[in-house]
Amino acid sequence: MSGWELTYEGFEPRQERLREALCTLGNGYFATRGAATYAQADDVHYPATYLAGGYNRLATEINAHVVENEDLVNLPNWLLLHCRVEGGPWLAPGSAQIERYRQTLDLREGLLIRSYGFRESNGRRTSFRERRLVHMREPHLAAIELEVTAENWSGTLEISSVIDGRVVNAGVARYRGLANRHLELLAADAIDDEAVYLRMRTTQSRLEIAQAARTRIYQNDARSWVSSHPSRDGAACIGQAFAIPLAQGGTARIEKVVTLYSSRDRGISECGLAAREAVARAGSFAQLGASHVRRWNQLWRRFDIGIEESETVGTERTTLILRLHIFHLLQTASAQTMDLDVGVPARGWHGEAYRGHVFWDELFIFPLLNWRLPEITRALLMYRYRRLNEARANARAAGYQGAMYPWQSGSSGREETQRLHLNPESGRWLVDHTYLQRHINAAIAHNVWQYYQVTRDMEFLSFYGAEMILEIARFWSSIATFNEQTRRYEILGVTGPDEFHTAYPDVAEPGLRNHAYTNIMAVWVLCRALELLEILPEERWRELRADLRLDDDELARWGEVSRAMHVGFHDDGIISQFEGYEALEEFDWDGYRRQYGDIHRLDRLLEAEGDTANRYKASKQADVLMLFYLFSSEELNEIFHRLGYPFEYETIPRNVEYYSRRTSHGSTLSRVVHSWVTSRGDRPRSWQLFKEALESDVADIQGGTTPEGIHLGAMAGTVDLLQRAYTGIVTRGDVLWLNPCLPEELRRVTMVIRYRGHALDLAVTQSSVTVHAHESNATPIQLGIVDSRYLLEAGETREFSL
Amino acid sequence: MSGWELTYEGFEPRQERLREALCTLGNGYFATRGAATYAQADDVHYPATYLAGGYNRLATEINAHVVENEDLVNLPNWLLLHCRVEGGPWLAPGSAQIERYRQTLDLREGLLIRSYGFRESNGRRTSFRERRLVHMREPHLAAIELEVTAENWSGTLEISSVIDGRVVNAGVARYRGLANRHLELLAADAIDDEAVYLRMRTTQSRLEIAQAARTRIYQNDARSWVSSHPSRDGAACIGQAFAIPLAQGGTARIEKVVTLYSSRDRGISECGLAAREAVARAGSFAQLGASHVRRWNQLWRRFDIGIEESETVGTERTTLILRLHIFHLLQTASAQTMDLDVGVPARGWHGEAYRGHVFWDELFIFPLLNWRLPEITRALLMYRYRRLNEARANARAAGYQGAMYPWQSGSSGREETQRLHLNPESGRWLVDHTYLQRHINAAIAHNVWQYYQVTRDMEFLSFYGAEMILEIARFWSSIATFNEQTRRYEILGVTGPDEFHTAYPDVAEPGLRNHAYTNIMAVWVLCRALELLEILPEERWRELRADLRLDDDELARWGEVSRAMHVGFHDDGIISQFEGYEALEEFDWDGYRRQYGDIHRLDRLLEAEGDTANRYKASKQADVLMLFYLFSSEELNEIFHRLGYPFEYETIPRNVEYYSRRTSHGSTLSRVVHSWVTSRGDRPRSWQLFKEALESDVADIQGGTTPEGIHLGAMAGTVDLLQRAYTGIVTRGDVLWLNPCLPEELRRVTMVIRYRGHALDLAVTQSSVTVHAHESNATPIQLGIVDSRYLLEAGETREFSL
Repeated sequence: MSGWELTYEGFEPRQERLREALCTLGNGYFATRGAATYAQADDVHYPATYLAGGYNRLATEINAHVVENEDLVNLPNWLLLHCRVEGGPWLAPGSAQIERYRQTLDLREGLLIRSYGFRESNGRRTSFRERRLVHMREPHLAAIELEVTAENWSGTLEISSVIDGRVVNAGVARYRGLANRHLELLAADAIDDEAVYLRMRTTQSRLEIAQAARTRIYQNDARSWVSSHPSRDGAACIGQAFAIPLAQGGTARIEKVVTLYSSRDRGISECGLAAREAVARAGSFAQLGASHVRRWNQLWRRFDIGIEESETVGTERTTLILRLHIFHLLQTASAQTMDLDVGVPARGWHGEAYRGHVFWDELFIFPLLNWRLPEITRALLMYRYRRLNEARANARAAGYQGAMYPWQSGSSGREETQRLHLNPESGRWLVDHTYLQRHINAAIAHNVWQYYQVTRDMEFLSFYGAEMILEIARFWSSIATFNEQTRRYEILGVTGPDEFHTAYPDVAEPGLRNHAYTNIMAVWVLCRALELLEILPEERWRELRADLRLDDDELARWGEVSRAMHVGFHDDGIISQFEGYEALEEFDWDGYRRQYGDIHRLDRLLEAEGDTANRYKASKQADVLMLFYLFSSEELNEIFHRLGYPFEYETIPRNVEYYSRRTSHGSTLSRVVHSWVTSRGDRPRSWQLFKEALESDVADIQGGTTPEGIHLGAMAGTVDLLQRAYTGIVTRGDVLWLNPCLPEELRRVTMVIRYRGHALDLAVTQSSVTVHAHESNATPIQLGIVDSRYLLEAGETREFSL
Repeated sequence: MSGWELTYEGFEPRQERLREALCTLGNGYFATRGAATYAQADDVHYPATYLAGGYNRLATEINAHVVENEDLVNLPNWLLLHCRVEGGPWLAPGSAQIERYRQTLDLREGLLIRSYGFRESNGRRTSFRERRLVHMREPHLAAIELEVTAENWSGTLEISSVIDGRVVNAGVARYRGLANRHLELLAADAIDDEAVYLRMRTTQSRLEIAQAARTRIYQNDARSWVSSHPSRDGAACIGQAFAIPLAQGGTARIEKVVTLYSSRDRGISECGLAAREAVARAGSFAQLGASHVRRWNQLWRRFDIGIEESETVGTERTTLILRLHIFHLLQTASAQTMDLDVGVPARGWHGEAYRGHVFWDELFIFPLLNWRLPEITRALLMYRYRRLNEARANARAAGYQGAMYPWQSGSSGREETQRLHLNPESGRWLVDHTYLQRHINAAIAHNVWQYYQVTRDMEFLSFYGAEMILEIARFWSSIATFNEQTRRYEILGVTGPDEFHTAYPDVAEPGLRNHAYTNIMAVWVLCRALELLEILPEERWRELRADLRLDDDELARWGEVSRAMHVGFHDDGIISQFEGYEALEEFDWDGYRRQYGDIHRLDRLLEAEGDTANRYKASKQADVLMLFYLFSSEELNEIFHRLGYPFEYETIPRNVEYYSRRTSHGSTLSRVVHSWVTSRGDRPRSWQLFKEALESDVADIQGGTTPEGIHLGAMAGTVDLLQRAYTGIVTRGDVLWLNPCLPEELRRVTMVIRYRGHALDLAVTQSSVTVHAHESNATPIQLGIVDSRYLLEAGETREFSL
């Protein structure tokens, strides 16, 4: 295991789905065109090829071992590039013995490489070497190269190369009862001797998706002009079959290039025509590979993070996993998605869990993008801006003003949260109240603000960002009600990220009162909305006020609400997760652990027992700690001071300690947050949590969720722990602050960050910080190290002792 | 005629098409969704409603007078909002007498207002008052309000309200022989008692277009809950009929709101669903009007230009026409098109001439956008960037390197120039070589550069702009050949903007040698490409070099070509329009004028006589003068010096004089250019040409071309003459220069321009310049007045005497 290669030796059918999830290739475009961007609740679909996938369906779906595994039974039965010898069986794990198997995801070059051999019952041995790519510069292209060697035989090698429109959504076992066939056939034709073409339409969103595939055979580095036969397996599966004479020891090389266009693409007329033209123009695998690898090199120069742990072994594994996380982030939200209308789904684009819906995960994902390639953040924020009208309608429908973004959303931006969900432990379908997570609105405003802080992109803020912040502020003001008794504003009937608590025990109506994270975020948003008056050009502020009919009374109310919002406390300084939290029962953590082992989804265990997590001081993730994750103690002090509540630095470790003992980490985001909030006060604990969070996907620590889709928030969040938490990177006013506090095990962190037009090389050790600003014509910036400020100009290098 | 209202009194059927072209409403979105953005050569189409249009089809198509006019015979026969009384004839000019008619385009509020009365043969008099809008803030909405008053009768008023998918492209008489039916029906249904719904698909590009229409009736300011009857006229025309009892003197008010979505829209699932939801949510006409007018007010604050001529009458008419021009520009390229994938068609979106194709007109249009709302320019440049790959393929197909943008293009960015065109004078179809206008590539590079100069938008330049400039530079280098004899580089086989010259007389092969404007623009592009090395961040320059495989040899060649390009001269200092121009015959301007009167299309006259314009020193527009239009004498001096050719300031007036005498102004752009190039040397002439150019559309000075579509380049160009030519606004280095030189008739010009984050109020008179920078946090700029420099900070006001 080097720092760049995720390698598996040996074929393990039971591990295939996990390996697939971790090794899936993508480029943002390829997945989103077919996937859930355009999905409504029942309109999820994927492109009609899994060429992009790292998953060897050929190997698994015909494999007898696999059929025993219920999770894999219902895989769509289709083939990609399939070989057989002299009329024998199609070579696959079920029909022949796998002699050796090695699969490597090369992160540096964005290639998936597999080599393996088959031994047939008649003793014929055939070996394979595969390379796949989904192009990172030419978004519509993917390619596979397959080298087949006749180890101990001479004869005819038959190759079947198809594209198949019969793909269904079967990646998540518990969704299989739902409609999962979302594509209908429009056209499937051969183009010529080497190329075929398929056009499908999604049944609900009427998105047309066209693919063309070109297959060429080479022997001894020369094109082998074997003729092809058209092949069809049903109406929606079209391909070509080739027959090649091979002498013993001889190798045939097959290159398949696939193009994918959709009816939402830009710069085209009709997507079928575009796919056909693109496949005709596409270069060879070698040519495509060269430009693909060049683009990955460029991305790594921007995104890589260098670390040195006290132990070499640790350095290597941490480095590899961090790169795997960055790799998946860049495959999901890339330069190829910047010009598309796509959001960030919780599980990337290849996993089918949550049906591609967009939640609040960008709160954890954007910091990495902001500090490396903020243009991607801007594009993703535009995705939200385009759905501002829908959020307005959503607010109106719920009786509020302004914009209320939904907890889960898809293409149209409407609320898509399921109203029922299945508890696999009890087999019961339960009413789902998680749509009451209004805090997502604060996350969106926070993201707009952070993007502006890092880039100072006034055009974005003026034209789009400010309008979102103001409309979200208006929503918070409208949902807040004044309590005459306490003389405080309150927010009632919401739930928090901690999905263990959606109602009070024995109360039918869902929702909680004065959820602290929600209330404080509402205050923060109102403050930022009011601050816009000072930041925006005067004329633009006037325009916005007129457009939004924002009068003095409303602004005055915002000021009022932001100064008198209720926050509850108990146990002398513990911020109550919500009003009444203190009255809940303590949960028997040890007892349940003894009984069940893994209790990170204790809500399901309790429900199966006829109980409910609502009764206990037990959180899936600790919402109060989100405050220390998002804000520095200086910022929190300011907010609490504004509200007239006490705040000391000690509040942080006390609350961390309190809630840590009451959290199951039922979300992969939870460990990221806990590692972050202990990064100053308890560095050993923070490091341990960081290391656990690192393993979330690569070791599938939630036991089966990774095969349903990687956890993008946790992936980006772990990288951001190194990027910002341990380095202490904070923007405050117009100063870029660094205040490093590396865990003892971490000797050195290096990276290149972007800040207000500059590219800055950072090197942070236990005792020093070095900053080098690349040559550019960007204006000088203010740099703050611990508590002193310096002016840094382009081209300058400065070293600071800590 | 005030400065804000274009008003017509009296119904003039023969003027209707011109009035329609000038009074058409749009908001960028509404027209582009149906129109030629997505058009290939034979796939031009318009939305299935002309609600947007100012054209009273109801009035004209049934009008007996109109039927005599061949141009109007083939109008599509459909109705929008149609009224009749007590089963009488549908009220229209053919069936009833028009008693009075007044049509006003209110530019300030973006409303089209018409009032008229009908007198039926039985003496019944009914009067109408109409207001229409196409919403400038809610891009998917348009609305009409119709007040109908029973002047002298009591009885039942029947109202028919439909949407009709049978629309064809019949706006240009000479295209009517071509396929003009581009829409096929997918669905047409009633939604409920007040709304109907229509979904069509374009036949070639398979773009789906959905509309929904809601009709409500009001009497005495209260909703009149009359029931409706569904109405259908063929499969693709759907609507509702209402019957309202009216007492004598009573008024019924009808509000119709139409929504339009297409399958390329963002933030939606399926366009039909989006259209239906939007129409259900839409506010009343009054509500829509209020936000629409507010947006227009904001646009006018950014775009208006104030002038004071020595005569009040002149001031009023000039002001009105300038505003009409700005109005049409903002209806074509607006904030509503920024998030779409659309270019700037030569004739706006409503005229059908040139089938919506995109030419080089943005060269004349972008300066106005750059200095007022540069985000629009950026979006339009992205339209070009998305088609960079197609331009690369275009270059390869022609045997060149880099990117060669086509002369005419549509949705896919491929070359769409017609290969044959009709000379209406001779009735002959002629081979068309105008696709050889490679100069469009220089225009695109120029536009990228100008946008960067005004905004200093390094993100755009780094990510997109630089790649376009480099690939266009590579094209110019590859098309240039070295002439061993002259030791100069040459460009052969191209044509210029002057379409009178596409080949040498008696030579079969098309194309000209060493077209001066083309050669010099190529040099300019190569210089800018080399300058990028100094401007771009180093890392980005390296990435681009790697991506484009740009080696030292190629860069060296660019330097060489840019220093040794051939430029021809004759008559002692006249820049030859192309090699061999001097050998052409002089044209008998006076003779032809006597014979034909209007000879601005003398090419057609000559061809009809069996002759050809290629033989004569006669230009449609003078290509050499483009150099003085685009570049200051300082810039030209630099280029000529680099090439080792002499250049004195006197070169400019001598060439202007020479070519002015040999130009027919066969393009509306020509007068703009000629006015510009004489603005310093011959102010009276410049002013006269400016005034002529102003009348291009409003008076249809080319005799019939305006009804086929307004001339957007000339419209924007006339405003830019005031904005930059007479004020002498130039960006050079990092200085914003002003060097005013107002014509004697022009006392004062005022406007607000945007420059590098600042909003600057400018007031220029014969003797002074006043600059006020709005309050903002933008960094100070360098201001140059005539030949002195000053630093200007936000909030500062400075006045300079000239």
